[in-house]
Amino acid sequence: MNHPSFPAIAVHGGAGALDDSGTSGLGPDAPRCEGVGWAAAAAWDLLRRGGSALDAVVLAASMLEDDPTFNAGTGATLTATGQVELDASLMDGATLGAGAVACVKDVRNPVLLARAVLEHSGHVLLVGEGASGFARESGIPAWPNERLVTVHQRARFDAARRAAPATVGGGTIGAVARDASGHVAAATSTGGTFLKRPGRVGDSPLIGAGTYADDRLAAVSSTGDGERIIRVTLARLVADLVGAGRSAAGAASEGIRVLGDRVDGRGGVIVVGPSGEPGFAFNTPAMARAWSNAAGAIQTSL
Amino acid sequence: MNHPSFPAIAVHGGAGALDDSGTSGLGPDAPRCEGVGWAAAAAWDLLRRGGSALDAVVLAASMLEDDPTFNAGTGATLTATGQVELDASLMDGATLGAGAVACVKDVRNPVLLARAVLEHSGHVLLVGEGASGFARESGIPAWPNERLVTVHQRARFDAARRAAPATVGGGTIGAVARDASGHVAAATSTGGTFLKRPGRVGDSPLIGAGTYADDRLAAVSSTGDGERIIRVTLARLVADLVGAGRSAAGAASEGIRVLGDRVDGRGGVIVVGPSGEPGFAFNTPAMARAWSNAAGAIQTSL
Repeated sequence: MNHPSFPAIAVHGGAGALDDSGTSGLGPDAPRCEGVGWAAAAAWDLLRRGGSALDAVVLAASMLEDDPTFNAGTGATLTATGQVELDASLMDGATLGAGAVACVKDVRNPVLLARAVLEHSGHVLLVGEGASGFARESGIPAWPNERLVTVHQRARFDAARRAAPATVGGGTIGAVARDASGHVAAATSTGGTFLKRPGRVGDSPLIGAGTYADDRLAAVSSTGDGERIIRVTLARLVADLVGAGRSAAGAASEGIRVLGDRVDGRGGVIVVGPSGEPGFAFNTPAMARAWSNAAGAIQTSL
Repeated sequence: MNHPSFPAIAVHGGAGALDDSGTSGLGPDAPRCEGVGWAAAAAWDLLRRGGSALDAVVLAASMLEDDPTFNAGTGATLTATGQVELDASLMDGATLGAGAVACVKDVRNPVLLARAVLEHSGHVLLVGEGASGFARESGIPAWPNERLVTVHQRARFDAARRAAPATVGGGTIGAVARDASGHVAAATSTGGTFLKRPGRVGDSPLIGAGTYADDRLAAVSSTGDGERIIRVTLARLVADLVGAGRSAAGAASEGIRVLGDRVDGRGGVIVVGPSGEPGFAFNTPAMARAWSNAAGAIQTSL
């Protein structure tokens, strides 16, 4: 257990395949590790200077959204009709306040829009054009859908239209943090599954599935088979296991075991418990991730 | 405890105010009791003839959607722009299969579309125009938004535009059932909050918030302050409490206590546990509801 006032951060860049070639859609392995490392380091620096857990997860998530390596914000996978549709959510464990958006096409950083939903809308979840309208009212400028599409994702889409491959998920990003005051927060953001049906919403923007945070339990962010994660309410399940006395690592492992056993799901979770200990688990070949250790150093792994 | 092969049904027509005048938006009290009674009786008849829990909750929910007394399907409340936007979800406790739609404007019975999502889409949640497109592919015809708007709801909207009242929720409908094979299922459907922002999605279509069903736990449908219900993942919370050994009634009461204490929320839940016992709780003045008792008779209450 860390010192009570010692902050903690953990981020993920999606559970999926190991892939040096970059053709899986998760991006090449080295840039993935680099991306999660930078995001964790920036959030850690903010926490160390007294920043809140909510600010830390929003900072980390927005950096990963802007990193074209990941399937969130810029660099998101394309839908069956060749557009980007973005989903994101966040939750403040101190208040149980939550904000989320789904099926948004014209915002650069959906996690910032989710934060505006939390703070200014009186709602938790806004979808589609209603979410875009709220973005404009909140001062978040319109961002052209084409600017979210990277050369890599467009080429992948064009190749898939020729070859009709199986749908591939992954590359979702997430962050969990505990601040020096002992509060926890979580955020998750994604472009969803490659070649998804327009309007499809997975676990990432759903409180309890992709994201959950409660100071009495833990902060959790999920990634993987969205439809299966929803059915076991994975983030809430893992948070409850910490609340029942499991370690963050043990709760993460048990959550992923349930995901596999009950609904044959593949994915991963990151967790930070009230003591600040990070936990991870995944039943995919890899999950890009970074976290602060007890000495305050940032570690990364796939 | 009922006999193991004795089926059970419970339905609700929304937690909210007692209102003989019909001006609360929940509709007059007598028709509300009548509506939930008819829906429960029809579903009970289906269960008694060997029908599945999933078929029973879909039948009850679609009847309540078609009843203009309730805020779901025909008779839904209007958004701030004077349209109807419908949300619904359902879950099969035998398989943990789930289907949901949100922000749909052109379907008569959103619970039937949610069932199509469960059975034919490979997804759990579809929103907006993507959900409408899937409806057409699934053979569910387009239904004009104006046909969902009742004279009562249009008059209420027009009056509100003159008087600018506080937003009022309620009138959501839901059903939970256990069939003779011991399987449970749950369904929930709503028009959302009166004068809601277009694109706002509450708890009703969210698995774990508005709806949850797992044969190992229970089937649950929620109604009330959607944003607050999401934050405590109310349906999943109540199901877990049954799984931990609480009675259906005790789990419902504890869930509503948490909703009130943790997030100052108002609402109600209906529950059917694996033994077939129904449970209800609400912290609003009333919740229209009907259920089958151990003798197989349908009872109704507000």
